[in-house]
Formats: sequence, structure tokens, C-alpha cells
Amino acid sequence: MRIAIDAMGGDHAPSLIVKGAYEAAIDMPDVTIVLVGDTEQIKTHLGAKIPPNIEIVHADDVIGPDDEPVKAVRRKKGSSMVMAGQLVRDGQAEAMLSAGNTGALMTTGLLVVGRLEGIERPALVSMLPTMDDVGVLALDLGANMDAKPEHLLQYAIMGSIYRTRMNGQNNPRVGLLNVGTEAMKGNELTKAAYDLLETAPIHFIGNVEARDVLLRNCDVLVCDGFAGNIMLKAMEGTAGTLFKTIRDVFTSSLLSKLAAAVVMPKLRLLRKKMDYNEHGGAPLLGIKGLVFKCHGSSDVKAIKSTVRQAKLAIESNLVSSIAAEISRK
Amino acid sequence: MRIAIDAMGGDHAPSLIVKGAYEAAIDMPDVTIVLVGDTEQIKTHLGAKIPPNIEIVHADDVIGPDDEPVKAVRRKKGSSMVMAGQLVRDGQAEAMLSAGNTGALMTTGLLVVGRLEGIERPALVSMLPTMDDVGVLALDLGANMDAKPEHLLQYAIMGSIYRTRMNGQNNPRVGLLNVGTEAMKGNELTKAAYDLLETAPIHFIGNVEARDVLLRNCDVLVCDGFAGNIMLKAMEGTAGTLFKTIRDVFTSSLLSKLAAAVVMPKLRLLRKKMDYNEHGGAPLLGIKGLVFKCHGSSDVKAIKSTVRQAKLAIESNLVSSIAAEISRK
Repeated sequence: MRIAIDAMGGDHAPSLIVKGAYEAAIDMPDVTIVLVGDTEQIKTHLGAKIPPNIEIVHADDVIGPDDEPVKAVRRKKGSSMVMAGQLVRDGQAEAMLSAGNTGALMTTGLLVVGRLEGIERPALVSMLPTMDDVGVLALDLGANMDAKPEHLLQYAIMGSIYRTRMNGQNNPRVGLLNVGTEAMKGNELTKAAYDLLETAPIHFIGNVEARDVLLRNCDVLVCDGFAGNIMLKAMEGTAGTLFKTIRDVFTSSLLSKLAAAVVMPKLRLLRKKMDYNEHGGAPLLGIKGLVFKCHGSSDVKAIKSTVRQAKLAIESNLVSSIAAEISRK
Repeated sequence: MRIAIDAMGGDHAPSLIVKGAYEAAIDMPDVTIVLVGDTEQIKTHLGAKIPPNIEIVHADDVIGPDDEPVKAVRRKKGSSMVMAGQLVRDGQAEAMLSAGNTGALMTTGLLVVGRLEGIERPALVSMLPTMDDVGVLALDLGANMDAKPEHLLQYAIMGSIYRTRMNGQNNPRVGLLNVGTEAMKGNELTKAAYDLLETAPIHFIGNVEARDVLLRNCDVLVCDGFAGNIMLKAMEGTAGTLFKTIRDVFTSSLLSKLAAAVVMPKLRLLRKKMDYNEHGGAPLLGIKGLVFKCHGSSDVKAIKSTVRQAKLAIESNLVSSIAAEISRK
């Protein structure tokens, strides 16, 4: 099993990416890690003793965070990200991951690895935090701004398969993000999508509201990228602002500081629980291979955990399951 | 100055609605309150001494919370809500307010009072809470599910005029709710709306994100009803869940209960600050008169404060200002 890592993408690249790859290689001896990037820099960060299951593929170029995605992927064929995508396309790696430019990574998935037949829009899948720590798998949270009802149907099918294969959750409940739970609620998009979802081979539980996502009102949340992103940022912003204000309350007097000492550890856990970025890599589903997006600020732990995620996806035949289900329709 | 009140709409109707009207009449002797509803019930709640500036208009019928809006307004011509609307239409009241069925009230505004010339979609205007207690005026948060760019432009103009006239805020900053602050972000709707807003006679500050609304990143927030409602419910849900969890943390041990005693008063203030329902009546803008929606759970204080809001709107010529600006285009 071979997993390619874009060594040059991310805020802490290449150092923490390479160190994460190193630890993943030690931890998972049955995985061969292919580090793609500047050989010299990679070697510096790997140190003297390179594990036998690490290979290096040299790449001259890098796609930066401000590069225009489509242009960058088309022109920078020798970049670490595009070359990692080529390894997946050519069967020299079963999966790739990158903490670099999100748009460029999606474009790499679309143009280099290629869409699955029958899929119109690949979706970037994210895990939203929930109070019970199980999470809600959400697609899409901002990759595709204008979705059609058929896209939401495909999101639902891909999300259900992911949740079953990757999280071992049988018959995951699929909810459609909407402004109310009644069947006829919503805009033209959700009304049309509702009808499609009702007859799809999934466990559709109807419309769900943004206010209950933290309570895990469904296992797979389907929405267009615009509404999904608005929801995500409203949740992040509210949690962030409240925690900041609570911290101010706690530091306002000596007594309140004493009070803080008592409850702060638990509140800090709560803060951590709410942190969207804690929740691993995001797979791009609907393409002919496995591409995982790691957060830009990914550290050693994040890289290692995404390698583990990629390994599980390979072992559970995620891509062929999705391909089979989509072609069945 | 005459303000009509639907005495029969709302969770606490008619008792608290009538009591609120009574207090408003005492407080604002220059306003004549016209209570519309069942005369006998209204008289019961008014008590023996009816202030001279309260009139009663009898209505036989009531539109209930579960009535289908358009059907109800068309068929129940003798309902308290529709009759209050007729008073505004016929110039017998300058404004009306109701805590009843929201959809029916919007329909009353649209079909009974009537749209302003040039306005395609009247908008229900809400005040979102902010940490500085000033609030962000948002339109629309769920009245119209599918908006066109031109609707968002009209929202921006109406919201700016409302904010200036009603809150005395000169040159209010108008923001377009979007997934990022850069100009080209968003879906087809926001991209087209952005171009219209740039050339409009308003102080357009560009795209704003849901995460910063609590910090008052703009004074007038423009969005389609679907996205706006998703944002609102994501904020409400996150705040509600966090406060509940924090309460659980505080009650988990004797020590934490002591800690709670120290900081709870301030946290309760924060909770209250975040409460969307605390923020008064919501005007329906873009119609030929003033219609205010009070929250279903409105109490005496809420009714009184909405009467005051309506009075200010009448005094500041809100409707004619909007009509003039819209016809100028």
C-alpha cells in the first residue's frame, strides 16, 4: 500500500509534514510513504536514518497558498501537489494527501486524478464537531458554491458510503440542511433535492436544522457549499466569541479567577471539542482515487492521523464502492 | 397618530397583548391605540378604566398559528389581523402590529396593505444581537427563500434607510453575507448582487462573513432568506448548546457550584445579550404602510416597545422615504 504526501504544502511545510510522514512510516510499517517535494529539504527533515518504507519523489516546483487554483494546476506540472496527484492517477500510489492550497488540491483531484463516471461535482467531506464527540459528516461546506439537486443526491450517496465504510456506522441517517424540518420547507434547491433524496438508496430522515447539528441530528448532512459554509462559520464565530467573552468574565476579578481555576479545565475541553480543525483530513469524494485535504496548519499529529485515515479508506475499498453505487443509478 | 394592534395574535393573546397596549397608551398619550379583536375579551383585560386614547374595533375571527397564510388572509377577512391591515390600508391607522402567524402577517402586508411601487419582495427586518449591544440589522432572515440580485439590492436600500431613520446611524455600513470577504467570493446570487450593491446609493463595504456578525462587522446585513435563516439558527443553536453545557459543567460538583455563584450573573447577562428574541419588533419593509411583527411569545414589555418603535417609524416618515428612494432608481 502506497500513500503519497505533498511535502511542500501547508503552513508548516516541509518540516512538520515530513516529520509527520516519518512518524506515520514508523507506526504503519505496511504502508509505503512517498514524499513528494524538494529532495534536499525532505532529507534534511528526515534526518540520518530514513525508514525503509519512505520513498522520495523529487519535485522542483510548489503551488503556493495564493496561487489561482486552475491556473496553478495547469501550469505547474512539476509541483509537489500535482506530481502527487499524478502518482495516484498512474496507480503508483493508492492515495495522496496535502495541506496546501485547497482550491488547487480540488483541481488536482478533478483534472489530474479525474472524476468518477457519473459524478458531476466531487465533494470535499468534513466532519463537524458534535457534543457527543461522534461528529456529523457534512458535504459540502464550501467546495461548490452553486449546487443542483442532483449534486445533493450524489453527496448523500457518497457521504452514506463513507460513513458506513470509514466509521462502521450502519444505515447512517442522512439529513438535508434546511430552514425547518417540515417536508415542504426551503428554497427551490432543497425542495427539488428532497424529492430525489426520498427515493434514493439511503436512510433519508428529511430536513434538519442548523441549530441541532451540534446535537448530531443526523450522521450525514447534505447541503450546498454556500449554505454549508455560512452555517460552519456562524457556528465557529459564535463559539469563538462566546469563549472569548467567558474568558473575559473569568479574569475580571480575583474571585472570578478562583472560580475559573475550578471549571476552566472542563471548559477548555469543551472549547477543544468545538474546534472544527481538530477533526482530521477531509477526503475529496467522487474522483478516481483518494485525495485527502489536511488543514493548512496541520502538525505532525494531523499528518499521521490523515495517513491512518487514508490507509483505512484504501483497505475498505471506498472508491470502488462509490463508483459501483453511482453507476448503478 | 393611530396604531392598530392585533389583540388576538400571539402565545399570550389577548391578555398580555391588551395589557401591553394599555401600558403603551398610558405611556404615550399622543398615540391612539386601536385594539382589533373580540370586544368582550379585550374589555375584560383592559379592566374598568379604559384610557381615552384606546379604541376597540371588533373582529369576529382569528388567524391561528397553524393556518396556511395565503388561504387564511384571503378567507378570513373578518380576522383581527386582516382588519388591522385594512385600517392601515384605509388610512385609519398609520401602523399595525401583531404577534400572530408570521406568514399570515407578511401576506397581510403584501395583499391587504399592498407593496410599494417598484418593490418586488417586501422584507422582514430583524435585529441580530451583537456583543456591543448595538445589533446588526439583517434582511432577510427567512421571509423569502429564493432571492434575486435585485431583491438583495432593494433590501440594502431599505435597510440603510431604516437604520438611518430609526437608529440615527448616518451612513450605515452595508455588508453582503458571503463565504469570504474577497470581492469574487460566493455563489451566482452574491456575485451578481455584489455588482449591483457597488453602484447603489449606500455605504457598501463588501462581503462579510457569518463568523464576525456578533462583532458587528456591518450595520446592515444583506442576504437571501435561506442563507440568513441558516446563519441565524446556527448562531442560536451554538449559543444555546454551549450555555447548556456550561451550566452542566457548573453543576457537576460542590466546588463548581461555588464557582458558578461567582460568575453566573455575568454569564446570564451574556446569555440574555445573545437572545435574538429580546430585540423588539420586526418591521415588514417595502409595503405602503407600517406593519410590525412581534415575536409569538411577546409579553407586555415587548408590545409596549414595539408600539414605541412604530411611533418612531411614523414620526420619521419611514415609508415615504423608502418609496422616494426606490422610485428614484
